[in-house]
Amino acid sequence: MIMGNTLVAVDWGTSSLRGARLAADGQVLEEQSFGRGILSVSPGEFAAVFEACFAPWMDERSTCLISGMAGSRQGWAEAAYCRCPAGFGELAEHLLWNPPGAPAGRVAIVPGMSCTQDDVPDVMRGEEIQIFGALRLTGLQDGIFVLPGTHSKWARVRHGRIAAFRTFMTGEFYALLGRQSLLSRTVDTDAPFDGAAFDEGVMRAFEGRGLLHTAFGARTLGLLEGRAPAALGSYLSGLLIGEELRQALADTDTGEPVLIGAPQLTAHYARALSLRGRTSRSLHDQATWAGLHALAQQTKLL
Amino acid sequence: MIMGNTLVAVDWGTSSLRGARLAADGQVLEEQSFGRGILSVSPGEFAAVFEACFAPWMDERSTCLISGMAGSRQGWAEAAYCRCPAGFGELAEHLLWNPPGAPAGRVAIVPGMSCTQDDVPDVMRGEEIQIFGALRLTGLQDGIFVLPGTHSKWARVRHGRIAAFRTFMTGEFYALLGRQSLLSRTVDTDAPFDGAAFDEGVMRAFEGRGLLHTAFGARTLGLLEGRAPAALGSYLSGLLIGEELRQALADTDTGEPVLIGAPQLTAHYARALSLRGRTSRSLHDQATWAGLHALAQQTKLL
Repeated sequence: MIMGNTLVAVDWGTSSLRGARLAADGQVLEEQSFGRGILSVSPGEFAAVFEACFAPWMDERSTCLISGMAGSRQGWAEAAYCRCPAGFGELAEHLLWNPPGAPAGRVAIVPGMSCTQDDVPDVMRGEEIQIFGALRLTGLQDGIFVLPGTHSKWARVRHGRIAAFRTFMTGEFYALLGRQSLLSRTVDTDAPFDGAAFDEGVMRAFEGRGLLHTAFGARTLGLLEGRAPAALGSYLSGLLIGEELRQALADTDTGEPVLIGAPQLTAHYARALSLRGRTSRSLHDQATWAGLHALAQQTKLL
Repeated sequence: MIMGNTLVAVDWGTSSLRGARLAADGQVLEEQSFGRGILSVSPGEFAAVFEACFAPWMDERSTCLISGMAGSRQGWAEAAYCRCPAGFGELAEHLLWNPPGAPAGRVAIVPGMSCTQDDVPDVMRGEEIQIFGALRLTGLQDGIFVLPGTHSKWARVRHGRIAAFRTFMTGEFYALLGRQSLLSRTVDTDAPFDGAAFDEGVMRAFEGRGLLHTAFGARTLGLLEGRAPAALGSYLSGLLIGEELRQALADTDTGEPVLIGAPQLTAHYARALSLRGRTSRSLHDQATWAGLHALAQQTKLL
């Protein structure tokens, strides 16, 4: 039995709600997840959902840190973005304590981060904690950190601080093109992964003809060359991930990117990076808990 | 009253059916259009729809040429693609006469064209006739011909023949991103054209960061900088058209592209081209009739 303070670490995203009870040293004591992403929660209902899910963990020695979309305008309470460059210190300073209805002094929402490049702002919520967790887990203070997904993030870290980042709408483009465009007739996005077709898509993207043109190949290759919809699903995925890499790597000529995400997705990115001659390393779900734990230490909560 | 043979020129596309009765010299005698694109016609019903729409024009001196998706697998009868490079001669040789149920020897479907670049096939149906019409109307024998739309086509013409072409899914991306993606919350695609916002999007695209990243700006500029959805509709359009131009112009460093299409759309492309320092000229609906008329002359139908 571990005594001392505990941290209730919560990742409250758009479509899911996950929590972990962490010991003072960061050990994960228990984990839970719920189908209560913020899109399923009405305004004013957040405190009740939190209570229903996490009350058993919130004893007198516990503090809770929440990252993710719970801090957005549509979430529990809006936590203003922290501007890059920023590190743990800035995140800790800008914690939003006491969202409406929470037990006083016991719950804080982690702000997201914003960044302006070429006069256009960019934002993330939740990924910043995963990046800080990855720094803790790897011992790195500098590098490129990649969070693949619906809206992939590529962040550059310098001296332990997030210097800048960019979003790529890769996962959303894949869903739109594969399921809602004309391509949906020749592309099966639910088929098993086809490595050769994926690699072909990646290499095609690397040629730099751009997605507006190359995506049409996922139709013509089926129509004129009889390629199977299953293969074209992986081909389209390769086109998109290859395009993301081609653009993102233009900023990052050297170093070994750290991929953070679900094992299958990071494996696809690692595979595509290797076709560019780049090695990478991958971290999975543990990054969020490590990040919230590190932030709790920074804030002297543990 | 003009005597002699007449041409019934028909443009039968995915969502619309248009026809014109042309005199032997190409003069347009009458025009009609119907909401009977091929998507609205059941297999086996094409001859009846043709008869209902065009029987009054099909006297003993008339021949009919049909271009567009009527020649696709989902159309009246499949007319195999003509491979590039190809000119009027090849199109005329590959006319598909007598689709099922048509009056014998009187109706022919114009084949589309295919082209393979970088090992990936590309196709068009209907645009090839517009390009040949544009050649006739301008007197050009060489040049770049651009047909903006759902699936824009950029064709290179040499010595009066279509040498090669590429498709860009620009219009479809605009509809998907503006109406079905997360961006639909910050973007109004039905708002009036905003020239300054459009130009900003075009210039942003020219920087070459790629659509997967730049598209996200249509969300953050709304969310963080309070840009109006109306402006962001034109901004997104500029991002997409700018991206198409950036890619397509990489092949075509010189010359004055000929834009073929509806006046509003070609005006937007001309505007974006001018931001790249390129002049252009524009042709509108007359290109289809001119192309079918030229093909009828080539085939000695007139």
